[in-house]
Amino acid sequence: MNLPPAFLDALRAAVGTEFVRTDSDSRNSYGTDALKRGAPADAVVFPSSTQEVAAIAKLCNERRVPLVPRGAGSGYTGGSVPTRGGVVLSLERMNRILEIDEANLLAVVEPNVITGDLQDAVEKVGLFYPPDPASLRLCSLGGNVAECAGGPRAFKYGTTKRYVLGLEAVLPTGEIVRTGGKTVKNVVGYDLTQLIVGSEGTLAIVTKIILRLVPRPAAQTTLRATFRTVEDAVAAVIHITRARVIPAALELIDGESLEAVAQHLGVRTLAPVGTAALLLLEVDGVPAAVEEEALRVEQACRDAGASEVLRARDEAERSELWRVRREMSMSLKMVAALKFNHDVVVPKGRIPELFALVARLRREFRLRIPSFGHAGDGNIHVNFMVDPGDADEVARARAAEPVLFAGVVALEGSISGEHGIGFSKAPFLPIELSPEEIALMQRVKTAFDPNGILNPGKIFL
Amino acid sequence: MNLPPAFLDALRAAVGTEFVRTDSDSRNSYGTDALKRGAPADAVVFPSSTQEVAAIAKLCNERRVPLVPRGAGSGYTGGSVPTRGGVVLSLERMNRILEIDEANLLAVVEPNVITGDLQDAVEKVGLFYPPDPASLRLCSLGGNVAECAGGPRAFKYGTTKRYVLGLEAVLPTGEIVRTGGKTVKNVVGYDLTQLIVGSEGTLAIVTKIILRLVPRPAAQTTLRATFRTVEDAVAAVIHITRARVIPAALELIDGESLEAVAQHLGVRTLAPVGTAALLLLEVDGVPAAVEEEALRVEQACRDAGASEVLRARDEAERSELWRVRREMSMSLKMVAALKFNHDVVVPKGRIPELFALVARLRREFRLRIPSFGHAGDGNIHVNFMVDPGDADEVARARAAEPVLFAGVVALEGSISGEHGIGFSKAPFLPIELSPEEIALMQRVKTAFDPNGILNPGKIFL
Repeated sequence: MNLPPAFLDALRAAVGTEFVRTDSDSRNSYGTDALKRGAPADAVVFPSSTQEVAAIAKLCNERRVPLVPRGAGSGYTGGSVPTRGGVVLSLERMNRILEIDEANLLAVVEPNVITGDLQDAVEKVGLFYPPDPASLRLCSLGGNVAECAGGPRAFKYGTTKRYVLGLEAVLPTGEIVRTGGKTVKNVVGYDLTQLIVGSEGTLAIVTKIILRLVPRPAAQTTLRATFRTVEDAVAAVIHITRARVIPAALELIDGESLEAVAQHLGVRTLAPVGTAALLLLEVDGVPAAVEEEALRVEQACRDAGASEVLRARDEAERSELWRVRREMSMSLKMVAALKFNHDVVVPKGRIPELFALVARLRREFRLRIPSFGHAGDGNIHVNFMVDPGDADEVARARAAEPVLFAGVVALEGSISGEHGIGFSKAPFLPIELSPEEIALMQRVKTAFDPNGILNPGKIFL
Repeated sequence: MNLPPAFLDALRAAVGTEFVRTDSDSRNSYGTDALKRGAPADAVVFPSSTQEVAAIAKLCNERRVPLVPRGAGSGYTGGSVPTRGGVVLSLERMNRILEIDEANLLAVVEPNVITGDLQDAVEKVGLFYPPDPASLRLCSLGGNVAECAGGPRAFKYGTTKRYVLGLEAVLPTGEIVRTGGKTVKNVVGYDLTQLIVGSEGTLAIVTKIILRLVPRPAAQTTLRATFRTVEDAVAAVIHITRARVIPAALELIDGESLEAVAQHLGVRTLAPVGTAALLLLEVDGVPAAVEEEALRVEQACRDAGASEVLRARDEAERSELWRVRREMSMSLKMVAALKFNHDVVVPKGRIPELFALVARLRREFRLRIPSFGHAGDGNIHVNFMVDPGDADEVARARAAEPVLFAGVVALEGSISGEHGIGFSKAPFLPIELSPEEIALMQRVKTAFDPNGILNPGKIFL
């Protein structure tokens, strides 16, 4: 797409000449995200205010130019990739924490505050912002809102949506709207806040976020339990639930993933011989409650037949127990250069059936599929590891995807618990949603974006 | 509106002759709710299944007949009143608890399960459904979903929306859709679940609800603290927050409300002389944590200058402390026959400013305004008590309403935290929302209901 010079001039007038870039470096580097399948932008703009965002939207809407909002670009499904060209709107200059309100337990931020930075800032005053996507040192809160980011703590604390109280946003047609507000309760009109959360930048451009905070838990304890079968590990999860404990983290790592980490770290093994699944568990709260809950978790794991249960006695041991999880991403890179990482989710009672399905895919499609994830909420990262030079392996992995997704839906699950649809999963949307449901969502899209200029080609094909 | 005989015959064919009523008793009794301002229905239908609901919607949509879904009819803003006539669709026959899934911590219910009945059922197996609107023995879960019901526990546990994982719903055009599901994480397409929650029956008719459950807290402790000023009481609330305790209940009752209860109970006083505000507090969780938090709450109240702090030692004392709150509604009925009860909400740090505004309204409009509510989330019930025979008092109360609402919005609050807009608050919507925001919501409405047949005249004028 060639953008007309008059249009580019109007963009420059709106945000300042130095904040509109059309050089090929910028066009390419803002044309990809963590999915690593990109398309160049025609221009990249860097507004510094809501008013500038509104001006850009108006211009793009008038000229019917695709407009793609972008946070930190750490998404896994290509949500910020300008697949149809047009203007990438990078929010990186809007990165201030505007307010941390201790009395009302809330924070007001611009979209490009890094998630981990907000967490650090609020923890300093004894507060807590729970959502913890793995990319929290890279990703932005605006991106978290766009994708409804999750993370290990979601089972106990919920995902991003549970913390978004209100938004300021710019519609694709340029109007500035405010949704929700500073109160937890608000039932005036439709809940557009929650509609925009998770809409992957297709409904509106978020320019300000009001986030709910909670008290920082005073104590936490980490445990690790190993099991000879995935069934036993999931039985432990169910036992923990029946013991009425909701751990702050409940990560499950399968044998193939453990092996990858052991190889990467150059150690022979990370767990007792014959370990098919490892659970990393963390309980948090007031100290007395943490002690009581840790005991119940230990007991539940032993009841389920754990081969070993370890409990961290101090911060160093805690860090050591988490190490296997932290090294996971790097370790998988050593297994194979390309990872199709699917963030499927099933009711947690059905995790064994999900792992049975993965075992079947390993066999039938001859694939390496290390799998791990958040067992508490049934959200398992199923990673197809492929050598990009091996066309046959890539083809087998592609062929296995719809089988995985259909299987997950048959287990009352969902094809994405965290990463969203973007463009990479758009072909699979009809596996989960009916034509009537997709048509309804598209009418909602049109209610926000009558000309279809905002992040086109995402979610829907 | 006269419904054509052929249309009525089609309704009868869809749900059975005995489940379509057009007698004037039915038309009138299904023409009002707790607001007590009604309009007769033209017909009342009682479907027993999702398919029957879909058939009714199709018929109404084809003939452009207003269709008004109805739960228990306990709403305060006329949300289930057929203000434009047409068909009232009562969901009372769809009242089964379909599933309580202990392993996955969820329940599946039909819409007309009474909220308190579900709570009893899940508490029997050690689980907990927190939302607790005052009407919980009358109201239905479908109505709670439509209005996003709150209650005292919302500060700690959140309102209904935080517990709705998925819905089955019938669109006004008759399609059956499913939103969300049995998993806490699901980011596939737009979050229509949360959009439908709180939409007051204007977007879709909910026919099945998947609810998230949590472990039942093992222990709770109730405290009561009295204060000489509302400022002191709110200072205590802020101190409690700063002590990083989130009580399960944090009810504030003002002096005028206390006096009403005392009169109703025929006692001289319920609190030390000079009490301007009373806080009812409850902490819950594992026993050790409850003890620790109760101590912190006591200390925070004393630090804020409480004139008295009581703590229940057993269930009988706990019940006695709650008595003043339980008797509130009956007591207010003795003050005056008519109550305009406004459920305004402000950030809790601004509650003193809200009470200053109420004091001004008392003076300027010469009104009795007992006020009480959920201090933790700033949601205060501001009750204009009027004698319906006193036309001047009624007029003064009506005149005070927009002043209250504008004042609340100026305090960064919202005109409704619990009851919704219905038709009684629709004229005030523009006080809180901009024309652009209202227009956007109306476009969303059209995306669901192109012919505007579903619960017309609600939310929007």
